[in-house]
Amino acid sequence: MLVVPEGAVWPSPLWNDELSATRYHCDLAYLGAGSATAASDVAVTVEDGRFVAVEPGVARTADAAHLRGLTLPGFANAHSHAFHRVLRGRAERPGTFWTWRDEMYTVAAVLDPALYHRLARAVFAEMVLAGFSAVGEFHYLHHGPGGTPYDDPNEMGRVLVVAAADAGIRITVLDTCYLTGGPGTPPEGVQQRFCDGDVGRWAERAEALASVTAPGRALVGAAAHSLRAVAPGDAGAVASWALGHDVPFHVHVSEQRAENDTVRHAYGAAPVDLLDSVGALGRSTTVVHATHLHPAAISALGRSGTAVCMCPTTERALGDGIGKASTLAREGSPIVLGTDSHAVIDPFEEMRALELDDRLATGERGRFETAALLDAATTGAHASIGWHDAGRITPGAPADLVTVSLSSVRLAGATPDTLVEHVVFGAGPPDVTDVVVSGRRVVEDGRHLLLGDVAAELSGAIAEVVRAAARA
Amino acid sequence: MLVVPEGAVWPSPLWNDELSATRYHCDLAYLGAGSATAASDVAVTVEDGRFVAVEPGVARTADAAHLRGLTLPGFANAHSHAFHRVLRGRAERPGTFWTWRDEMYTVAAVLDPALYHRLARAVFAEMVLAGFSAVGEFHYLHHGPGGTPYDDPNEMGRVLVVAAADAGIRITVLDTCYLTGGPGTPPEGVQQRFCDGDVGRWAERAEALASVTAPGRALVGAAAHSLRAVAPGDAGAVASWALGHDVPFHVHVSEQRAENDTVRHAYGAAPVDLLDSVGALGRSTTVVHATHLHPAAISALGRSGTAVCMCPTTERALGDGIGKASTLAREGSPIVLGTDSHAVIDPFEEMRALELDDRLATGERGRFETAALLDAATTGAHASIGWHDAGRITPGAPADLVTVSLSSVRLAGATPDTLVEHVVFGAGPPDVTDVVVSGRRVVEDGRHLLLGDVAAELSGAIAEVVRAAARA
Repeated sequence: MLVVPEGAVWPSPLWNDELSATRYHCDLAYLGAGSATAASDVAVTVEDGRFVAVEPGVARTADAAHLRGLTLPGFANAHSHAFHRVLRGRAERPGTFWTWRDEMYTVAAVLDPALYHRLARAVFAEMVLAGFSAVGEFHYLHHGPGGTPYDDPNEMGRVLVVAAADAGIRITVLDTCYLTGGPGTPPEGVQQRFCDGDVGRWAERAEALASVTAPGRALVGAAAHSLRAVAPGDAGAVASWALGHDVPFHVHVSEQRAENDTVRHAYGAAPVDLLDSVGALGRSTTVVHATHLHPAAISALGRSGTAVCMCPTTERALGDGIGKASTLAREGSPIVLGTDSHAVIDPFEEMRALELDDRLATGERGRFETAALLDAATTGAHASIGWHDAGRITPGAPADLVTVSLSSVRLAGATPDTLVEHVVFGAGPPDVTDVVVSGRRVVEDGRHLLLGDVAAELSGAIAEVVRAAARA
Repeated sequence: MLVVPEGAVWPSPLWNDELSATRYHCDLAYLGAGSATAASDVAVTVEDGRFVAVEPGVARTADAAHLRGLTLPGFANAHSHAFHRVLRGRAERPGTFWTWRDEMYTVAAVLDPALYHRLARAVFAEMVLAGFSAVGEFHYLHHGPGGTPYDDPNEMGRVLVVAAADAGIRITVLDTCYLTGGPGTPPEGVQQRFCDGDVGRWAERAEALASVTAPGRALVGAAAHSLRAVAPGDAGAVASWALGHDVPFHVHVSEQRAENDTVRHAYGAAPVDLLDSVGALGRSTTVVHATHLHPAAISALGRSGTAVCMCPTTERALGDGIGKASTLAREGSPIVLGTDSHAVIDPFEEMRALELDDRLATGERGRFETAALLDAATTGAHASIGWHDAGRITPGAPADLVTVSLSSVRLAGATPDTLVEHVVFGAGPPDVTDVVVSGRRVVEDGRHLLLGDVAAELSGAIAEVVRAAARA
């Protein structure tokens, strides 16, 4: 059924090295380091997928690929469920998070490896077109119908790595442990596809998946779905596995009040307290959403340096509520960003939504510096999914570049001193013209060089999913 | 100083009737009437700026201009302060609504009629590019420095009408009465430019402005800035003037808690109660924002059929908070939309933000039907600014059409039954290809036919404002 080769999955057969350059000239570039001001005429040299020289104030030379507009570091999407993209425009009816989840399950139920490959690579390509150079895929759709493993129990995980290679994006597969439908409740229906039976078998499978990865291109990290789906002790075991392998650990936390209630009823404490008690917090841990926290939980996350992945456009779409992002940041948690359910795939909207929704909740403006919003989408998000040196345009870092055209009416009025702020608060994916990932050109003049017509690829994949769901 | 002709201001000298067609063929069109499904192959015939025939299921003929994608009715922007556009990307520093207002005042202080014309027509053109066919300009910058009237006391109002004509958008100038810096406090600094001295002199000036308007193209309505700036009795007088002239009445209400406190301290009741007591609520009234309301105020607005203009992207940007939109709608208030401060100019984001921010506040999804979100941006918003038959593609209505390309990756996966939902939840201004306003083509293939490079026009105008503010 599946077409994925057993051996090396990187580079994709779609790659063409001739598309890449070793020298780029950025008319304007954001070089970070706390300043929100752009540098002019930045010459960039790339070797083996990393920056080896970054020099502002250099005249453009003929051998350098010319990046007009403002060039930013690549964004990372720290929390993605690729297949949720099918629900965009299809699930806005009255209901709650939980009725939305039923609709999401109907999509999960019909995916097989071939269809998941087709869908995921188009979704990942949409991400690259929007400026993402890396994705953390929170992956729990492991097994076939009824929970029967595929011949290779990691067939679905490998599919995601291949899909990312085809789309030209770096990937961290956050291999997710999912054991129960709720505390003490066996998984039901499609949830059986998520389930390895126990945490030992999860670890065995995750260990095997790690061998599929490609240095500098694909990583495997670990996740516990949530404390609804993994008991605290098991979540601690997953976190230990991650620590032992020096890879990231992610977990959904307190997205909904009902989740807090369920967990507290079953285990006698709130999710963050339980994670703390099993040693699952810390600098290699990212808690996702963290919307409904009590003050002590905020302190525990901050004190331990645990990152918090906010997914503002999904939290709006699912009616989760507004988390305490600025308080968490002040207490010491790095704030990072993800597009999660892909209601939209837009790193600019996520950055400004982080700030704007905090304003809605607090009545105050300028809760985050513009540079901090960029950090959340770049350095912070890359680090959260294990790419610790990525997200900055500096020698030694993976050579990721995202160029934003300044010619649209939306950005009209920007001046050198306000350019970065304009882009964060006013730009969108249609303004992205060029994307370089690990030194390879993937998007040029708004065109995806590997997949061509990404919209057609994505429409075809979604149509196939919708047909399969109608048959089911 | 000013170049506005004294006589007819419509049509603009930029108009070229040869750009317009009398027949259009829409591959897909949203015909409303409660159904969120698109009709196919809709033939549209236009005469004298209005639809005379709208026929689905008709084969395309060679004489019809071809509108590919999904064609929607024109959007109306029910609440605009054109000059606030200067602050996009320039005012995101820490502070509050009130510190933001100080920055806004520095812009207001440097505008003269020529510069305001240049700026407003580019801002209005950005609106048309985004799909707006009408704008309600909440206009209070009436007088010269120190409050000295121009030779024509309506020079600034005429400038706005001319700017709209140049940009190809219908306009309602909501001529705004502004008398006090706060209850019992004289206007200070730039506020003097807003002030007519008393409500009688305001009415006299507004009466004169009404003579400038062009039938079917420009209207004058009335506004009281707020109960900070106009005492309740005077606000009632402005509302009576509007009722007597059969034009809309608008007023800012309860955008900030501090505003409620100030008004309650001065007049002993909350803004909505005071407006009710002076007879200023009703079907021709629109209250703007209405963020912080007590339950009885919500009932009073609903019972009286008073429209509520939400400006979700501005309310996010200014940290106003989330109003009770779905409750207001249920109680009987038409909900309409405006882009207000132009943090972004994007009718799609306003529509979905209305729904999404209500989800954030309530924890429930599908608070508005998709058709209701479209009504808020089309029929409802047009009616709120006095264009009672606009915003629908139906014989007799002003011939406004907005065509959205379906070819972008953002809308990939849409199928005929989900198309409208996809567009409301996933589209943006870059997807708008064609705009027809009152039967005239203003935008074709994403290009503004009257002003050409709108981004350059807008950048030039903003640069001039920024230079003037630096000199001041």
